Amino acid sequence: MTNCVETRLRVRYAETDQMGIVYHANYLIWMEVGRVEYCRSAGIVYRELEREEGILLAVVEASCRYLAPALYDEEVIVKTWIAEANPRMLRFGYEMVEVSGGRRLATGETRHVFCNRARKPMKLPERYRAAFGMETRGELTASES
Amino acid sequence: MTNCVETRLRVRYAETDQMGIVYHANYLIWMEVGRVEYCRSAGIVYRELEREEGILLAVVEASCRYLAPALYDEEVIVKTWIAEANPRMLRFGYEMVEVSGGRRLATGETRHVFCNRARKPMKLPERYRAAFGMETRGELTASES
Amino acid sequence: MTNCVETRLRVRYAETDQMGIVYHANYLIWMEVGRVEYCRSAGIVYRELEREEGILLAVVEASCRYLAPALYDEEVIVKTWIAEANPRMLRFGYEMVEVSGGRRLATGETRHVFCNRARKPMKLPERYRAAFGMETRGELTASES
Amino acid sequence: MTNCVETRLRVRYAETDQMGIVYHANYLIWMEVGRVEYCRSAGIVYRELEREEGILLAVVEASCRYLAPALYDEEVIVKTWIAEANPRMLRFGYEMVEVSGGRRLATGETRHVFCNRARKPMKLPERYRAAFGMETRGELTASES
Repeated sequence: MTNCVETRLRVRYAETDQMGIVYHANYLIWMEVGRVEYCRSAGIVYRELEREEGILLAVVEASCRYLAPALYDEEVIVKTWIAEANPRMLRFGYEMVEVSGGRRLATGETRHVFCNRARKPMKLPERYRAAFGMETRGELTASES
Repeated sequence: MTNCVETRLRVRYAETDQMGIVYHANYLIWMEVGRVEYCRSAGIVYRELEREEGILLAVVEASCRYLAPALYDEEVIVKTWIAEANPRMLRFGYEMVEVSGGRRLATGETRHVFCNRARKPMKLPERYRAAFGMETRGELTASES
Repeated sequence: MTNCVETRLRVRYAETDQMGIVYHANYLIWMEVGRVEYCRSAGIVYRELEREEGILLAVVEASCRYLAPALYDEEVIVKTWIAEANPRMLRFGYEMVEVSGGRRLATGETRHVFCNRARKPMKLPERYRAAFGMETRGELTASES
Repeated sequence: MTNCVETRLRVRYAETDQMGIVYHANYLIWMEVGRVEYCRSAGIVYRELEREEGILLAVVEASCRYLAPALYDEEVIVKTWIAEANPRMLRFGYEMVEVSGGRRLATGETRHVFCNRARKPMKLPERYRAAFGMETRGELTASES
């Protein structure tokens, strides 16, 4: 079980379209915002992972189901959790909810692979695995003993 | 069987991110570009459908699989087709390919419902159905006779 | 003299480009975020002004000077103030500063005219003028007496 | 005198906002599109300048005057020219015009400095100067003789 991290944001005018609602591609950006805050709350500053370690979390799949439109200036909570994790891959789940009325706006998912600076797939180093809820060798040993 | 419409675009600097590749949410915008050109080639100017008829094609689901990164200034072909169509719903399929090297960049899908100006679901008027490859009453009668 | 309102935001990955810094057009979006919070702190919810009163604040001019690049995941303060105001027009000034190191990132300005729903220029109704620091008839009378 | 290069684009749904017109920050992106095509027509592929030579054209100032709103699905011509050029700096001018009705949408300007990969200012190498309409040493000699 991984925990669920909540991030708040406010709908920007730039994010609306002429239908008077948030343009659908922006939800993927909100998921990214939620994902980064998930990492931060797990003790990982994604910026440093990328800059100092050269580990990129490349998106290989994204999907979103739109349940109710988000409107300009509304406050939105992005709930983010890890749906699946192993040293090569992460799958995040998301739910977006409007704050004042509690409307469920959307649910989504993104799948990522860990890559090095040359964007070649790699395994996440051991020391970062626990933060993403992966079993580490230490844990395995512990549970085996 | 519906046909497949090809639309070309060139990657904008604004669409890249600090990984040096196109930011993943932009592919949903490219799908929209492909979808609009699909409609145009089928004889439907989406802008007029929306403005004059008050018929909106609201996105209810979107997904994308990222196969290879798109790079700044590359030319991209968005192939668009209708995967499923009935008077209440449309499902579009997409494939994005880089022109000069032929790299397959991504595949995607969007699902839409027809809505009126108040964003309530509605059935697409008969006169527009043939353009989206839906069987019309006329056709049914013809095939029944 | 009008006061200066500070709004915080965090740089999104989507806002960076392949130069590894924030793409310059995004600063205009940050100014919009600052402007909306300026209004809110002055007692005006711009969303309601637009939706209930049909008063739009149309942008007629925008400019930005880029002093230092903003980087992914940095926290930014957008300082917003009114540089000029009369019943037909508003001019906002902005300064954007990175929080942890105090780097000045950019300064900017936007000029707006008040428009009705048909996007025709109009005068801002009296009851809203004080909030934007405009002299109202009441004030004039007071200062004349 | 430098020449003026015209680039066409079509307004995307994603570029509109709930006012029913193109969101103002997008004009800066269109200017970038025009700028890149200006360079290409002058024999310079900006992508290669950046990737192979490590020469970046960093934006230090941008401004736009909005004359008439651009609408969804309209075709727009971006006219781009060089307003000022020296080995350290380039200033581009822009005019955006709607194709079918000929409405002038906006005028704009961007100022750039040449930078190396570390984003430090540098002088544009001689061999690129003629393309940007700068006097080169060869020309000077010629005019001096």
